[in-house]
Parts: sequence; C-alpha cells; structure tokens
Amino acid sequence: RFGEAELDDQVGVVTGLAWTEVGGELLTIEGVMMPGKGKMTVTGNLKDVMKESISAAASYVRSRALDYGIKPPLFEKRDIHVHVPEGATPKDGPSAGTAMATAIVSVMTGIPVRRDIAMTGEITLRGRVLPIGGLKEKLLAALRGGIKKVLIPEENAKDLADIPDNVKNRLEIVPVSRMGEVLQHALIEPLKPVEWSETEEPLKGPEPTDEGATAVAH
Amino acid sequence: RFGEAELDDQVGVVTGLAWTEVGGELLTIEGVMMPGKGKMTVTGNLKDVMKESISAAASYVRSRALDYGIKPPLFEKRDIHVHVPEGATPKDGPSAGTAMATAIVSVMTGIPVRRDIAMTGEITLRGRVLPIGGLKEKLLAALRGGIKKVLIPEENAKDLADIPDNVKNRLEIVPVSRMGEVLQHALIEPLKPVEWSETEEPLKGPEPTDEGATAVAH
Amino acid sequence: RFGEAELDDQVGVVTGLAWTEVGGELLTIEGVMMPGKGKMTVTGNLKDVMKESISAAASYVRSRALDYGIKPPLFEKRDIHVHVPEGATPKDGPSAGTAMATAIVSVMTGIPVRRDIAMTGEITLRGRVLPIGGLKEKLLAALRGGIKKVLIPEENAKDLADIPDNVKNRLEIVPVSRMGEVLQHALIEPLKPVEWSETEEPLKGPEPTDEGATAVAH
Amino acid sequence: RFGEAELDDQVGVVTGLAWTEVGGELLTIEGVMMPGKGKMTVTGNLKDVMKESISAAASYVRSRALDYGIKPPLFEKRDIHVHVPEGATPKDGPSAGTAMATAIVSVMTGIPVRRDIAMTGEITLRGRVLPIGGLKEKLLAALRGGIKKVLIPEENAKDLADIPDNVKNRLEIVPVSRMGEVLQHALIEPLKPVEWSETEEPLKGPEPTDEGATAVAH
Amino acid sequence: RFGEAELDDQVGVVTGLAWTEVGGELLTIEGVMMPGKGKMTVTGNLKDVMKESISAAASYVRSRALDYGIKPPLFEKRDIHVHVPEGATPKDGPSAGTAMATAIVSVMTGIPVRRDIAMTGEITLRGRVLPIGGLKEKLLAALRGGIKKVLIPEENAKDLADIPDNVKNRLEIVPVSRMGEVLQHALIEPLKPVEWSETEEPLKGPEPTDEGATAVAH
Amino acid sequence: RFGEAELDDQVGVVTGLAWTEVGGELLTIEGVMMPGKGKMTVTGNLKDVMKESISAAASYVRSRALDYGIKPPLFEKRDIHVHVPEGATPKDGPSAGTAMATAIVSVMTGIPVRRDIAMTGEITLRGRVLPIGGLKEKLLAALRGGIKKVLIPEENAKDLADIPDNVKNRLEIVPVSRMGEVLQHALIEPLKPVEWSETEEPLKGPEPTDEGATAVAH
Ligand SMILES: [Ca+2]
Ligand SMILES: [Ca+2]
Ligand SMILES: [Ca+2]
Ligand SMILES: [Ca+2]
Ligand SMILES: [Ca+2]
Ligand SMILES: [Ca+2]
Ligand SMILES: [Ca+2]
Ligand SMILES: [Ca+2]
Ligand SMILES: [Ca+2]
Ligand SMILES: [Ca+2]
Ligand SMILES: [Ca+2]
Ligand SMILES: [Ca+2]
Repeated sequence: RFGEAELDDQVGVVTGLAWTEVGGELLTIEGVMMPGKGKMTVTGNLKDVMKESISAAASYVRSRALDYGIKPPLFEKRDIHVHVPEGATPKDGPSAGTAMATAIVSVMTGIPVRRDIAMTGEITLRGRVLPIGGLKEKLLAALRGGIKKVLIPEENAKDLADIPDNVKNRLEIVPVSRMGEVLQHALIEPLKPVEWSETEEPLKGPEPTDEGATAVAH
Repeated sequence: RFGEAELDDQVGVVTGLAWTEVGGELLTIEGVMMPGKGKMTVTGNLKDVMKESISAAASYVRSRALDYGIKPPLFEKRDIHVHVPEGATPKDGPSAGTAMATAIVSVMTGIPVRRDIAMTGEITLRGRVLPIGGLKEKLLAALRGGIKKVLIPEENAKDLADIPDNVKNRLEIVPVSRMGEVLQHALIEPLKPVEWSETEEPLKGPEPTDEGATAVAH
Repeated sequence: RFGEAELDDQVGVVTGLAWTEVGGELLTIEGVMMPGKGKMTVTGNLKDVMKESISAAASYVRSRALDYGIKPPLFEKRDIHVHVPEGATPKDGPSAGTAMATAIVSVMTGIPVRRDIAMTGEITLRGRVLPIGGLKEKLLAALRGGIKKVLIPEENAKDLADIPDNVKNRLEIVPVSRMGEVLQHALIEPLKPVEWSETEEPLKGPEPTDEGATAVAH
Repeated sequence: RFGEAELDDQVGVVTGLAWTEVGGELLTIEGVMMPGKGKMTVTGNLKDVMKESISAAASYVRSRALDYGIKPPLFEKRDIHVHVPEGATPKDGPSAGTAMATAIVSVMTGIPVRRDIAMTGEITLRGRVLPIGGLKEKLLAALRGGIKKVLIPEENAKDLADIPDNVKNRLEIVPVSRMGEVLQHALIEPLKPVEWSETEEPLKGPEPTDEGATAVAH
Repeated sequence: RFGEAELDDQVGVVTGLAWTEVGGELLTIEGVMMPGKGKMTVTGNLKDVMKESISAAASYVRSRALDYGIKPPLFEKRDIHVHVPEGATPKDGPSAGTAMATAIVSVMTGIPVRRDIAMTGEITLRGRVLPIGGLKEKLLAALRGGIKKVLIPEENAKDLADIPDNVKNRLEIVPVSRMGEVLQHALIEPLKPVEWSETEEPLKGPEPTDEGATAVAH
Repeated sequence: RFGEAELDDQVGVVTGLAWTEVGGELLTIEGVMMPGKGKMTVTGNLKDVMKESISAAASYVRSRALDYGIKPPLFEKRDIHVHVPEGATPKDGPSAGTAMATAIVSVMTGIPVRRDIAMTGEITLRGRVLPIGGLKEKLLAALRGGIKKVLIPEENAKDLADIPDNVKNRLEIVPVSRMGEVLQHALIEPLKPVEWSETEEPLKGPEPTDEGATAVAH
C-alpha cells in the first residue's frame, strides 16, 4: 500500500511527488509534533537541498504564524520531526517544499490534510511557489497511486501542453502560485488567523498529534 | 550464546533480524534508561540510516506517549542509550525500526519484551510498518537462533510463498502493518494509556532499568 | 515570473545580480524575521563565501543598529532566516553583500525595498562597497528582468566604458561606495536613528514580516 | 616499566589486553573523576569503535548505579576522563569494554582495582560479556607483563584448548559472562548497593581521585 | 581605492601586509564590536592558521585587559566580528597576528588606529612578535599603497639589509619585539590601565563602534 | 631570540623539546588564564595527538587540584588558552605532555617556571611520565638554545649511554618518572596543598596572568 494515496485524511501527512531516474513516485511526507523545546528533526536519508527546503518551509510557517492561527510561543514548546520514508532511498532537491510547509502547518494547527491530493513545488520564504522538473513523470505517478487532485506550480502550467489527455482527464490539476492557495486546497478546514502580542502569557497549543484522534473518515 | 534468543524476558532488549552478505543474523537491540536530561545516545557502529531509524522510532514513541502510558516530562528527565552489539560490525539500513521502537517503549514503560520473538520492519513516524528485504535469510536466522515467533511487515506477506514449508511450519510468522500490533505481540503486558495535561507538575517516571528487577522468568 | 523584478515593494526581498558561466541572472534574496532568540539561518544551496557574506552583512547591521533605528535587544528576540531560491543551484561568492545587508535592514526595520532596483557589491564590516566581476552580464540580466535602476560598486564605474549604450540608456546605473547610499536608494522610506542605552528595558520590535501587511502598492 | 602490571592497586587504573599486528600487548586504561558537570572526555588516539565502547560502558554503569553504590546526582556533578596511553598509537575495537566499565566503576566508587589482574571482553549495555579475538596473543602478553589473573569472555573458553599448557599453568584464567563477575574479581572491595529516590537532595560524592590517597599497598 | 591606506583613522580598522605568489599586498583587517554575549566571529575566507592567529590575539588581549583599560565583564557583554575583505581570496598564515590584536584592542577601547601605518608579525599569547616571511614584497606593497610607517618584527631587522634604499628611504620602518610597542605606534591615543576586582558589578563598555563617531579627521 | 631559553622566569611559559625531520628544536608552550567560564582553547597548528595531550594534562591537573593549591571552582571561573608558536609549523605527538601540564599548573597557581629548564615526556592521567623518541636530537637542541637542565622520562635514562659526553657534561639531565618531580624541578616555588569542601562558597583565584607582574628576575 506504500506508494499509494492515504486511506484517511491525517494530520501531518502529505503526499509529495518525486522524480527519479526510473520515473515518478509518490513521496510521503510525515510530520509529528511533540512536547519539547523548539527542536526540529529531519530524517529519511535526506540530502542537503531537501533538508534546506524543510528549513525554509519551517521559517515560512513561523513568519506567517498568526495568519495560520498559530501563536508564536508554541514554536518554543514543541519539537517537530519531519520524516520521509523510505529510509533506504536517498532523497534530494527543493521540489517537496510545498508538501513540507503543508505538513508543518497541519501538525501545528491540528488540521488534517486531504488524503487524495498530491503536490509538487519549491517554495520561497515568502510562500511563492517556484517551478519544478519532471512534471509528466510526477503526474503519472499520481495517477497510478490513486491521487485525485495535484497541485503544481503555476510556472509549470505551460508544460501541461505536453501531458497526454488521458492523464489530464483523470486528474484535477491545479496550478498554484502561492503557499496560501496550496493550504486552501490541501487542508480539510480553513485556517483561522489569531491575535497575539508579545506580552501575553505563553500558552498551550493543540495536543501532540495522535493518529486515532486526528484521522478523519470520508 | 550470542546470536540466539534471550533466556529471559527483559526490559529494553529486542531481537531484530539483519540481512548481510553472508546470510541472515539475529541482531540484539539494547536500550537502557538513566536519570538524565533527555539525551539520546546511539552506539554499535551504526551508519546514518540506522541512526535515523532510531531517531524516527523515538519521535514515534514521544508523539504517542500518552497512549503508551508515558507522561511527557519523563522524556526530559531521562537519558536513553540504544546500543547494538557487536561493535566490530558496521550496521545500516532502516529495517530495525520496529525493534528500535519496541526497545524504547519497553525501557520507558518498564514492561519486558518477550524473549522468543524477533521482528523486522521499517517504521514511519506514524507507526506504519514498511516492507523490508532479505525475508528468507532473516527467517532462517530466526529459526537457527531458537526464535518462536517473527513479526514481519504485512507488505512482505506475499513473499512468504517463496519460503520453504519447513521454515514456515516451525516459526509463527505474523504479518503486521502498524506499530501497535508489534507492541501487542512483543510486550509481556498490555500498555495502559495515561492522562496528562501540560499544567501538571513534572513527575517521577519508572525507576531506571535494573536488570535483576525487570527480568521475568518463564 | 521568477528571474524578473518583483511586482510589489516588499519587506526583506532584494534583487541581487549573479554571474554564472552562462551569463548574468537575477538573484532574489529573501529575509524573514520571526519571534526567536537571535538565531540566523541561511539556506539556498549557498557555499562558504556567500554564507560568510551574510554573516558580515549581519554584523554590519548590528554594529550600526542605532543609526538604522533598530534597538539592540531586538537582535536577541528575533530569529532571521535569509534564503536564496532556487535551491537546485549552488551559489557562491561575496558579491551579494549589499543585497544581503539591505534584506536584513529591511526585515529588522519593516521598511520595504523598492521592487524595480537591483544591486551587486561585496561589503566590508564597516559598510564599504567593494568591486565585483561580471558587470556587463549582470547589467544585461537586470535589463531582461525588467529592472529600472542598478546599484554598482564605485570601483566598477570605470568598467561602464565597456557597456553598450543601449544598456546604459535603458538602466539607471548608480555607482555607490558605501552601504548608506545603497539603503537610501533601495528602501522606500528613510531610516530614522534611534536612542538606546544598555540599562533600558528590553523592548518590542516590529511585528514579524507579514506579506500582506508589508507589500506596498505603487 | 610501561607494558607491565601496576605496582599498586589504584583507583581508576585497569589493565586491558590489546591485539595488534605484532602480537598482544598490555593496554593501561586510566580514569579520573573531577568536580564538574557530567562531561565525559576520552583521549589516547582512540578510533570510533573504542570510543563507543567507552560510551556503552558509561551507560551501563549509569543504568546500574544504585547496585554499585553510586547515587545518580554524582553523574551530574563530576566530569570523567578516560585516557589510554600511549598517545602515539591508534587504538580501536570493542574488546576493552570490560576494562572501560571497571575503570568507570572504580573512579566513581573510589574502590581500587587489583593490580595483578588483566581483562578482555566487549560488553553490552546490560553488562553481558561478548567474545573477542586474539586470545592467545593477549594471554602471552599478560604473562610477559607479570599479570597473575586474566578475565576472558565465557564464549572464548572453548578457545583455551589451543593455548599452550605453560601459559595456562602460569596464569589464572577466568571465563566470565557478566560485568558483575568482572567487578567481583577486579575490585579490592565488594560494591555496596545504595538507596536513592529522585526527590532526595543532590549529594556529595567521593572526593576526586587522588593518587596518594587511593593507592593501596600489598 | 582598495589596496590603499585608509583615508581616516578608524576604530577597528588595521592595515596588515600579505605575501602571495604574485607579490605583497595590503590586507585590511576589520573589527566591529556589538552588544552580545562574548561571541567571536571571523570571516573573509580565512584558513585555519589565520583563524587561530585571531584566537591567540583575542586571548592575548583578554589576558592583558586591565593594562589596556578594558574591564573583563565587557568580554561577556559584547560580540566581536573580525573580517578580512576580499571574500573571494583565501587567506592563511600567522603573520597578521599583530594586526589582529591591534584591531581587537581598538574596537574594545574605542581608540582609532592611525591610517598611514601598516604592520606584519606573528604574535604569541604573551604578546611577543615573531618573525615573518616575504618582508621585501610586503614593504613594496606598503609603499605602493601609500603607507608611511611599517611595523616589522625585530627578528626581521636583519633582513632590512636586502631591501633597496629607495624603499627604506620612503618608509619609516620600525622593528618591534612586543605587542605593547605595536599598540604605542598604531593607536592615536595611549592606553590607560584600569582597576577592576571580580566582585565589582558588571559594567557598561564603550558604545558599539559607529563609523561616524569614531573616524578622526587629520 | 626564538628557539632559545627565555630571559625571565615566567608564569605559564614552558620550554618543551620537539623532534622533527631536521633535528631537535625548542618548543615554547604558552598558557594564559583569563576570567571566563571554564573554556580551554588550544592553538598553534596542533594535530590531534598533541591536542589530546593538552586535554590529558588539563584533567591531570584538575584531578590533583587540591594537592597543587588550586580550589576546584577556579576551573569554572577562568578560561585557559594554551598556544604553541610558531603557527606556520604543524605540531603533533604526545611528548609535550609534561610541558603542557607544567604550563597549566603555572598559570593556575601563578608560580613562574624556571627559564633555563626544558622538558620532554608523555604523561598519563595519573601523572606518570612515559618515554619519548629523539632524545639525542632534543638534548642537542636544548644545548644550542642555552638550556641548563633537561627533564627526561626515567624510561629514557637507558638511552643516555648513546649521548656524547660533551652534551652530558654541559647539561644537567634529570630522569623523572612522575609529574610531581617535574613540577618540583620546574617551578620556582613549591606548591602548597589547599583544603576545600564542595559546600564552600565559590572563591576568587589568582589574578589573570599579567606579564609584568609575574616575570621574576634572576
Ligand atoms: Ca517506493
Ligand atoms: Ca490513538
Ligand atoms: Ca554475530
Ligand atoms: Ca539488580
Ligand atoms: Ca533561474
Ligand atoms: Ca497577510
Ligand atoms: Ca607499548
Ligand atoms: Ca597525593
Ligand atoms: Ca586585492
Ligand atoms: Ca554614523
Ligand atoms: Ca623554529
Ligand atoms: Ca604589566
């Protein structure tokens, strides 16, 4: 069942799309949040550019925290771990940026990610979505894996001309240019901005992710 | 006696299964917990992917702590050391994930691990069990080492068709898809969920593992 | 749209100019500021010399903080992340120094950067602007990208003799010798010095950068 | 006199046995304890596997502290340094594990180690003694160095058949399977368990090792 | 103008002399001091031996602090950054030691460095000046760069016999054997010793370097 | 004058003896102590084995602190820097151990080192002096450098048979087996043990080394 869409909408679990020498592949991104002290751990045989894309995704989320309903002290009171199975395969490149940011927003807000959506796109610190390579192979992998909707960078929309119609007919392909659009498509509930001032007391965040509690049946 | 099943059910000692160029082998995973400050040490000539699998196992356990009866402050007040003898042999790969997570749950709860069980499987941060290689060699090693029951990834169940009947008849082979099942099979007592809120006082955990106190005769 | 001038004047976003084997290129520098503890993160597949140029830019800004209206405790209460998309391309060299310093001043003061300006120049710790290579290729890239004004090191002014007239006629090219001049050209508002003494209470800085709030229409 | 048994029973000084290309050799392990903050330093041109064997030995001792009469706060209030002269020779492998653990127990309890004993054996985190290589060469080195008694892993007892009688007649060779046996043979006084609960006040440990005070004449 | 003497006497800016394959060269050393926590940053594409010479210079200054009018708590309340433009050129060797120490004393006392002086010399922790190589090339570079006075190690005085008279006539060349002499020549004001005892309250140091405030016209 | 005996008895300055491909050489070891937090810095282009010998020397001194008149809290309130000029020459090996330990005892007690003494010897953590190589070359270097007395390891005394009489007649050569003997010969005043208990208040140590104050004329 690995390499296929998830069965549930889950908190912190996002389907990315990888492009390897042997074709496209679904890439599961997993985030969990734990009581802690603001530490970020990344694992899954990730090379430097993919590690940096998680760092950029995390700073994007931190710098937009209030818009997303996250009070800043939560960053100091939780640890986050982002993992990309399967550990035996090295993974690199910046194109999982949108998936990384979505996973982090999901774990920090407790809002699940739609299970039948996949995404690809580098992100900038301000949340712009930059173009990626291997669009065709990635879309084919999404189709094989049972994905219904794929978010791609707007700057890759021009490459859709080369994609066979039978792929385009069976997938909802959504070009996006900003992280805000990605989150609107990917999360099952809208994000609610929150007010916070530096003088407020530190506060309690959502409970740590708990699989049973956060899976949402459809 | 090394390379054979343990004589006692012990806290923090789990039998994994390794696959090397010269065949399968039992891999003892040892965990101990000590009064400390939340530090995790890993030794045993482990290469990066196996180190990361311990990190993922630890985050899985931390993110599920309440379900497993572990109050979060315990993570801050104990150090954990995971060691894989024999130090002269380099070890790598993600397939000891289920064994690593079982060792950590066992040391943190004080519940011993059944001595006649072995296991293989990569785990994800959410506790899914992913497939591994070398199933046949690993099962043969389990048999040689006096193991009675082997937990394998459900996605490897299809490979059982290639395993000789004399192996399958002499071992109880249990396909599992989630870490929860692994723990049900491996621990000698069921885990008991616990309640905890962030405002509670830090609390005392179980005493540090003590060999004499935790070994359970059968 | 990447590789072109920005559509808005934004806080923390500066257009640098890179010189590669295949010609010049716009290099977007992005800075964000977050509630934190004085940590500086730099990403974007940056090699050592470019990383050091960010370090020097940050120290330049810290050592001139009061002139720029930044009270020193802000450095201890915020984290800054400087990112240079696109992650797949390694980037090196000291010539983005003026752009790095401008990005840091912009995020720390909340004053947006003019969207139609680009800049190139190494900086020293005291804010002097040192000469760079590849002037012609960089100016051509600026022109292609829709830039109106380019800040170059004064010591490169002599190289303008080799630049075609059609480039010089369509770009406002401004030689600068000090970081102060760069900031006067690049920021949409003048910097206002501030008073501060070490015995003052720590204070609140500007809110973390928020894209919607800080973009300024023209 | 180096390469020979010690003249005194000393705290923290243990004789291990190394196996090199040119034969066996006595390996002095030295531990000292100092007022500090729980830092462990290891020196002596040690390669990774030997460093890890010290780490495992230290965790073994910490996890068994009460059985050995060591109150846990002592680990936080002392630094330990383990050194293996001679600095010009690189040293590796796990077989000094029993010697490392003995040195650490000795410095933390202040109980001297018998001067005429040598030992070889990898240890696990639970204190099991695992087999080693080069038994014959190591025993010959012990004999040459004036050692009276050698502790070897029980799993190496079968290799004694290959050892010449004149060696076996002149050395007391003791196969051991657990660290507890090692300590009984090696320390000049029995270890006394101690009670301790986490709510107790931090306490004073034994004075830092002092050569004059701890040497015991025979 | 880079590669020439400074126009102003500045705090923290010292002209060193480098010796490269293509001849001598002026090397600007820049130091700035910032409110901070005692962190030292060094940048400028510096290799290990030059980095260590900054470390030694800093310890020399710290160990002589009272003689130089610096109260020790200042070291804990300021960060110092030493940078050597130009970032594209790797730099190594111990011969900038006197310049490094002068830069650090200047930023910590706020006393500017004479603009028309250059210096070369390794220093020891006690402030002795050790001989350097490439004297002739360095003196020629000083002459070309408009320098009036050059401080050289006393042990290099014997090499002056090989320097052409037209160089010696146009430069004031001063052999020095101790760091104290270097500072007497280089700083525009004498250093004033200060009293301090460990029980005193932490105190305020000079303001962070500010270019406008510290430049001194001549 | 470098490469010769010092002119004064100084605190923290010890003459070691190095053995290189081109013969023996005096090696000045410099230590300084500064108000700080227990940090140890080592510089001088030192390779790993020499760095470790400084670490072992420091632990030896810490573990014997009371015998040498040093109250333990001083280690937490001072930083020590050990430097070996000349930075351009890489240095390695354990044979400067006695010199390193002498330098550290001298800076921490404020007792100067005799200027006309040189020493060579590896030390163990317990202060034993182990044999070294290159004795003849080192003695010749001592003679050339104006040294009067040389401390050598007792285990090297047998090698004196090969040293020419004219060397032995002009140098006082003292074989030593323990660090205590080294200090008796090298320091200008005897060490005075001190009492201290862990419950005492932290205390003031000697003032940081100050060249003027600590040099002692002869
Ligand atoms: Ca796959
Ligand atoms: Ca659950
Ligand atoms: Ca084995
Ligand atoms: Ca027990
Ligand atoms: Ca591009
Ligand atoms: Ca907004
Ligand atoms: Ca030897
Ligand atoms: Ca003594
Ligand atoms: Ca130059
Ligand atoms: Ca100014
Ligand atoms: Ca020399
Ligand atoms: Ca003085």
